[in-house]
Amino acid sequence: MSLDAVLAEIDNSLDDAMERLKGLLRIQSISTDPAFKADCDKAADWLVDDLKSIGFDAEKRVTTGHPMVVAHDPNAPEGTPHVLFYGHYDVQPVDPLDLWDVPPFEPTIESRPEGDVIRARGSSDDKGQLMTFIEACRAFKKIHGHMPVKITFFMEGEEESGSPSLVPFMEANKDELTCDIALICDTGMVSPGVPSIASQLRGMLKDEFTLTGPALDLHSGHYGGPALNPLREISKLIATFHDDTGRVAVEGFYDGVEDVPSQQLAAWKNCGFDEKEYLEFAGMSKAHGEEGYSALEQQWARPTLEINGLWGGYNGAGTKTVIPADAHCKITCRLVGDMDPDKLRAALRKHVEDRLPQDAMITWNQDLEGSKASVMNIDRPEFVAAKSALSDEWEREAVFVGMGGSIPIAGFFKSIWGMESLLMGFANDDDRIHSPNEKYNVQSFHKGIRSWARMLDKLAQN
Amino acid sequence: MSLDAVLAEIDNSLDDAMERLKGLLRIQSISTDPAFKADCDKAADWLVDDLKSIGFDAEKRVTTGHPMVVAHDPNAPEGTPHVLFYGHYDVQPVDPLDLWDVPPFEPTIESRPEGDVIRARGSSDDKGQLMTFIEACRAFKKIHGHMPVKITFFMEGEEESGSPSLVPFMEANKDELTCDIALICDTGMVSPGVPSIASQLRGMLKDEFTLTGPALDLHSGHYGGPALNPLREISKLIATFHDDTGRVAVEGFYDGVEDVPSQQLAAWKNCGFDEKEYLEFAGMSKAHGEEGYSALEQQWARPTLEINGLWGGYNGAGTKTVIPADAHCKITCRLVGDMDPDKLRAALRKHVEDRLPQDAMITWNQDLEGSKASVMNIDRPEFVAAKSALSDEWEREAVFVGMGGSIPIAGFFKSIWGMESLLMGFANDDDRIHSPNEKYNVQSFHKGIRSWARMLDKLAQN
Repeated sequence: MSLDAVLAEIDNSLDDAMERLKGLLRIQSISTDPAFKADCDKAADWLVDDLKSIGFDAEKRVTTGHPMVVAHDPNAPEGTPHVLFYGHYDVQPVDPLDLWDVPPFEPTIESRPEGDVIRARGSSDDKGQLMTFIEACRAFKKIHGHMPVKITFFMEGEEESGSPSLVPFMEANKDELTCDIALICDTGMVSPGVPSIASQLRGMLKDEFTLTGPALDLHSGHYGGPALNPLREISKLIATFHDDTGRVAVEGFYDGVEDVPSQQLAAWKNCGFDEKEYLEFAGMSKAHGEEGYSALEQQWARPTLEINGLWGGYNGAGTKTVIPADAHCKITCRLVGDMDPDKLRAALRKHVEDRLPQDAMITWNQDLEGSKASVMNIDRPEFVAAKSALSDEWEREAVFVGMGGSIPIAGFFKSIWGMESLLMGFANDDDRIHSPNEKYNVQSFHKGIRSWARMLDKLAQN
Repeated sequence: MSLDAVLAEIDNSLDDAMERLKGLLRIQSISTDPAFKADCDKAADWLVDDLKSIGFDAEKRVTTGHPMVVAHDPNAPEGTPHVLFYGHYDVQPVDPLDLWDVPPFEPTIESRPEGDVIRARGSSDDKGQLMTFIEACRAFKKIHGHMPVKITFFMEGEEESGSPSLVPFMEANKDELTCDIALICDTGMVSPGVPSIASQLRGMLKDEFTLTGPALDLHSGHYGGPALNPLREISKLIATFHDDTGRVAVEGFYDGVEDVPSQQLAAWKNCGFDEKEYLEFAGMSKAHGEEGYSALEQQWARPTLEINGLWGGYNGAGTKTVIPADAHCKITCRLVGDMDPDKLRAALRKHVEDRLPQDAMITWNQDLEGSKASVMNIDRPEFVAAKSALSDEWEREAVFVGMGGSIPIAGFFKSIWGMESLLMGFANDDDRIHSPNEKYNVQSFHKGIRSWARMLDKLAQN
């Protein structure tokens, strides 16, 4: 099969592809707001129609929430790898609306010195990105009449609202949808023009506790002194979570953590990550994590224990002379390597309970989950293919990057379907996803389509 | 002047006095709620009319808030001490209403094994208590036609809502209202049946700060590790406020603090304070303040640094993977002895700022005040008279007690009018002031009236 003809078709039909993307972007598929339920349905229908138009057997599948879109290729070549493509058609809310320079659902092309961008809610997260894959498929179908490998589509409309229907749907449709690997296009490039493939994602442990001291809220005049103050005690507990070098002081916390191999570290050094810019954006003059590790390692390859919420007592204006009965704390840990969330939860709880003062009691939230880190096997042929395809397209060696975040879908593919994920995407740090004035670079869209075409071509050669 | 006849008159007219008290209690003078503005006015009118009925020149004085009640005695004896009586006619809100066993503004007498109580909002705080003084005056006027000493009344209707009109009114009426000493009836007895006079009140320093770290709320996946977490940093700061023995670790904090003289300590040991009951009520198995001091000393005679509010990040249900830009903390210190609130504020702020990590910033609330502790000169003749009067009435030696709280009016009398305060009251710990089902013991009312009659008689002998 000729790749050149496919790439030429992509170039020649870019305007049409942009018009199709605009069509999808005009649908107000805000999944978290029930007022937009019909719009989410409409976006699913749009995808079903579009996939049908290029010869896929596409269906909208009803859930208790927003529908899934599933598509198979009736004309798939035999004896080729079978890949699943995942994306999501829902978008974040648009408020505050007055901070948008253009209406969020009227996609607009803007010319910029560094190249055109398309501005609209969902342009980068994830409609623009998922359409890079569909457009690559369209070009193959048009030029060759069929795809180079076997493809199944699986797209959801609840990614921005906690995916309540996802796990039950995955469990119910395991046999139909399990493939060799999942391709996910919902991530970005480590820096502009540097094609990036995720080699590791941090896992996550969520926990939350209430420290109760007095039997009731007390008056600080009548009881200040003799009463245990839960706000002081929770602060003392939190202060024990880290040592003076920024290392987490919970016993056993680092079980399963290994330093990044020097070869990978060397590759990261050349991945184009701008530490100074990264820190400056956050208002930091230095990296505050574990001493001895760069900001990049701290973000991608080191575990963390962060307090995400802390509260108790009186938070209004002025003063209330209260010693509150309790204090509350929300914690998330980011996990790496082989860290075990269950063991870690037990270690964290032991750490807290071992340090409880007399007359204090801890209640744990029992509803919070944990997930292991994902470490990709980058020696798999799909990763080799991806690196080669991206390097060809972007004329710059693609890099395997860590990701500080935890992408739940990759964990579910692994835990429910036993399937690895390959994440590559073309977003940029300045795309303003989840914020007003979201945009996607037209270059990301165009070269993204071409990247997927090259990738599918390489996969067929495996 | 015969005291016995006055006491007999008090005994004989107790039923009438109770009916008058019920009349005042029926007025819904909730000062904090604008819906009850007319009721507050009505309570002031009620007091003016009642004081006029016993021969005082009483007036309602308009303020920008609720009115003051001021009364002078046109028939005051010459050459006697001149005392100011202070009380407040406003009451706390009554919610939650469904927790009341009786309607809060329909005063009800309840028989109990230990004696009758009158149940209503304000029965103890402060209508029942202020009426003990007025009824004592009534009995004197009836039996002798005039009071034994010169008396001025000053009653406010904003005590339960921050007294916004108090200081301007006091400044504007200093010459008219300054007396030898203020008598305040708004406190309780250290234990049932033990008449108590305040010999010291703790002062108060209020402060509040915001610790800012990141330039904006950050994602804990993208920035967890490298970013300074304000919730962790504020916890570390708070953990430095005390040492392991419960002593405040702020340099200079104890300047001006002295141990309680052994004689006073011995007196406190016999004051009837039940440490076990006091701690058990709060759910404490021990006193958590400074090691080496009893719960009573910790409450009355030791300074404290308490966190009254602490908050930052996400406090809702579930998890938000945020590293917030800032964290907030409200602090009050209780002061004793000669501690200087201004110096202490500077010391506290230095303590915090000296410990600030790189990339963190502190903003202090500049609107919060401080007040010194009050230490009464119990050798003054009025205190000697009070002790003698109370001991006679209650047939139990009256005790000088500390008070853990800070009673602002006593501070204002001192700072604005240069006038000492004598606080004696007849409330009990189980009166449920500020809570549903507030009550006042009929014994407190009856013997309270008799106590004031004895006190006024003693003052006249000075």
